[in-house]
Amino acid sequence: MGDSGKKLRVGILGCANIAKKNCRAIQASALCGVTVVASRSDQKARDFISEIFEDQNQSSPSALGGEGAYDELLTGTVCDATYIPLPTKLHEEYVAKALSSGKHVLLEKPVAQSALSYREMLSTASQHGKFLMDGTMFVHHSRTEEFIKSIRNPNRVRFSFTFNGCNNFFKNNVRVKKDADFMGCIGDLGWYCVRMGLLVFSQMDSAELRKGLIQEVQVVKYQLNEEGVPLDADCLVYFSGNRVLTFHCSFIHPFTQTCSIYGTGSEYTATLSDAILPYKGDYLSISLTKNELIQYDEICVSESKVIEVDNTDVQEVCMWKNFSKMVAKVDEESKSQESDIENEVWWGGSSDEVKKANAIASYSLHTQIVLDALMESIRLGGAKVKV
Amino acid sequence: MGDSGKKLRVGILGCANIAKKNCRAIQASALCGVTVVASRSDQKARDFISEIFEDQNQSSPSALGGEGAYDELLTGTVCDATYIPLPTKLHEEYVAKALSSGKHVLLEKPVAQSALSYREMLSTASQHGKFLMDGTMFVHHSRTEEFIKSIRNPNRVRFSFTFNGCNNFFKNNVRVKKDADFMGCIGDLGWYCVRMGLLVFSQMDSAELRKGLIQEVQVVKYQLNEEGVPLDADCLVYFSGNRVLTFHCSFIHPFTQTCSIYGTGSEYTATLSDAILPYKGDYLSISLTKNELIQYDEICVSESKVIEVDNTDVQEVCMWKNFSKMVAKVDEESKSQESDIENEVWWGGSSDEVKKANAIASYSLHTQIVLDALMESIRLGGAKVKV
Repeated sequence: MGDSGKKLRVGILGCANIAKKNCRAIQASALCGVTVVASRSDQKARDFISEIFEDQNQSSPSALGGEGAYDELLTGTVCDATYIPLPTKLHEEYVAKALSSGKHVLLEKPVAQSALSYREMLSTASQHGKFLMDGTMFVHHSRTEEFIKSIRNPNRVRFSFTFNGCNNFFKNNVRVKKDADFMGCIGDLGWYCVRMGLLVFSQMDSAELRKGLIQEVQVVKYQLNEEGVPLDADCLVYFSGNRVLTFHCSFIHPFTQTCSIYGTGSEYTATLSDAILPYKGDYLSISLTKNELIQYDEICVSESKVIEVDNTDVQEVCMWKNFSKMVAKVDEESKSQESDIENEVWWGGSSDEVKKANAIASYSLHTQIVLDALMESIRLGGAKVKV
Repeated sequence: MGDSGKKLRVGILGCANIAKKNCRAIQASALCGVTVVASRSDQKARDFISEIFEDQNQSSPSALGGEGAYDELLTGTVCDATYIPLPTKLHEEYVAKALSSGKHVLLEKPVAQSALSYREMLSTASQHGKFLMDGTMFVHHSRTEEFIKSIRNPNRVRFSFTFNGCNNFFKNNVRVKKDADFMGCIGDLGWYCVRMGLLVFSQMDSAELRKGLIQEVQVVKYQLNEEGVPLDADCLVYFSGNRVLTFHCSFIHPFTQTCSIYGTGSEYTATLSDAILPYKGDYLSISLTKNELIQYDEICVSESKVIEVDNTDVQEVCMWKNFSKMVAKVDEESKSQESDIENEVWWGGSSDEVKKANAIASYSLHTQIVLDALMESIRLGGAKVKV
């Protein structure tokens, strides 16, 4: 199971659109491969497999269909890990089943209906010595670290992650259904904005998350659908030291995915204009802009430069490679080394991979904590909520 | 006085830095010229004149210095109009003196300590048939209209106008002194953001300002100095139809002057990265960016184009040309045609220039109304305030 030299065998739970992208990434990752796809519809599972594997010289995964397909996959022995892109409401049930059946889990975001629920999932993962990771791709690409480290003493992150849903989206998509993903745009898009904010203000040191880094949140403007699910929200997250993340997430706005970092220690502003779904290409870019006021009220100049970061492995491939490596080390080390859930060490181990595994889980948990607080702010009509 | 064919004679009241820029613009505007400069310090007035006029083949203006210099300029007959860049606290007194002495006034922003005070100034101007205009430059450049009209059905304007003040700025600048410009960054920088928001959401039709366009404001995050003057503020202005202006204005942040318009009627986002102090050059730019999500969670592409707008006359020259033209028409028409202050017609007249004069005054007044509400929001600890 995930031993070095052996590919991690991944089972796909449900044929969501996002699963296709991940399925391709798994196949491209060298360290893992899809061995089984389950759907409640037998036809859907087979269509999914034939679509993804048509052009590949690989053995196709097996298809599981019907009412019991998910359980069959989870309790079976044809995979070591499972990818769960189900609606958030179903996460608790299937993550528990997967973990207790000895499967590692890569879970789509938003990970849970509440941080409490996610803490329980992580505890279960810890008990079983199985890794539970969220499916946020951008954190796995090296551009993210370069971006974050490019501005010293960051004090403001501004994020806009928005798109214009079509009629069908508002009618049928799980993201706007109270009974599926009740956090709407906060859960679907705000997730990334918050995650980036946490990474920036902690300077990628997850220990900072447990030192009062996050203070308050406020949703200052929002629009809900008739089910009470947020479709549009302007949010602030206050960090210690008077630092702030401001973001706009929306299903009813032109498509944007722009993130900027400002800092007192830098004359430059760093910006990603493709922060979440990067443009295709051999390199990903970071824009650094310096605006200078030569004389107040008079002359200003602007200087820009671009940092290019290798994109040989696109972010979803990076994610699956990292996941596979971490799974291998969690399997290897967490059996013999103590966990310390109180201090967010769900998997004991001294390797970099296991440390990274715990750090990712911490970021994921604290992202969920912030989302909970944002939803609470909406419930309170836009009030400030302490975290 | 401002008749066609004759240059408008402008007197400068005080030798603020911003006065130099305006002085040069007046000289470059062909329709007007500086005839007198007054300062409480005789030396300062003479230094100012020798600095600005050293390289020009023009007759230098006369210098007035000493305690009574301002009054001497205002009651004298060597100018038809006066430019007042004094601290906001002094506006009421000197604007009244100027107008009652028969001078047209171009007044630096923020125009007044309150909208009430500004209404009184405008009434006085109306009574005397003299034009009172604020010194906001960007509204006079044709790029602004092109920018605003480039996005159909705008529903969001985002503005960031910030700079990093130096130690001396925080110690001595009027912008951070309660007794001079108590609105701090809200008055100094927010002024422009609000003005732009009003122009965008009214689609440059000032009549919209009197139809419930502006609804509420909220300062969601702010930092005050020890005198209670805002140094940094995140503000929202809510417009009818669920439209919003969000802006960040700050004296303690890297220099930015970026404004974007988003709309439901356009796939493009329009952005000015030099919205307030344009870069030098033959053309000013408007960036239009279209981000497209080809397949959700999958492929996105970005397309950009740039609109170039002629910059033969820089914005401050445009402003003084416009001011001179409007003054001429106000002089000509407002004597015989009725004002209607209730409906924000301070100067009667049927020419485009007089209509434009009234429209500019309306935008200026409603900008001040919004600033008042923002200051009230701060006084209430960041509460929403109805406008």
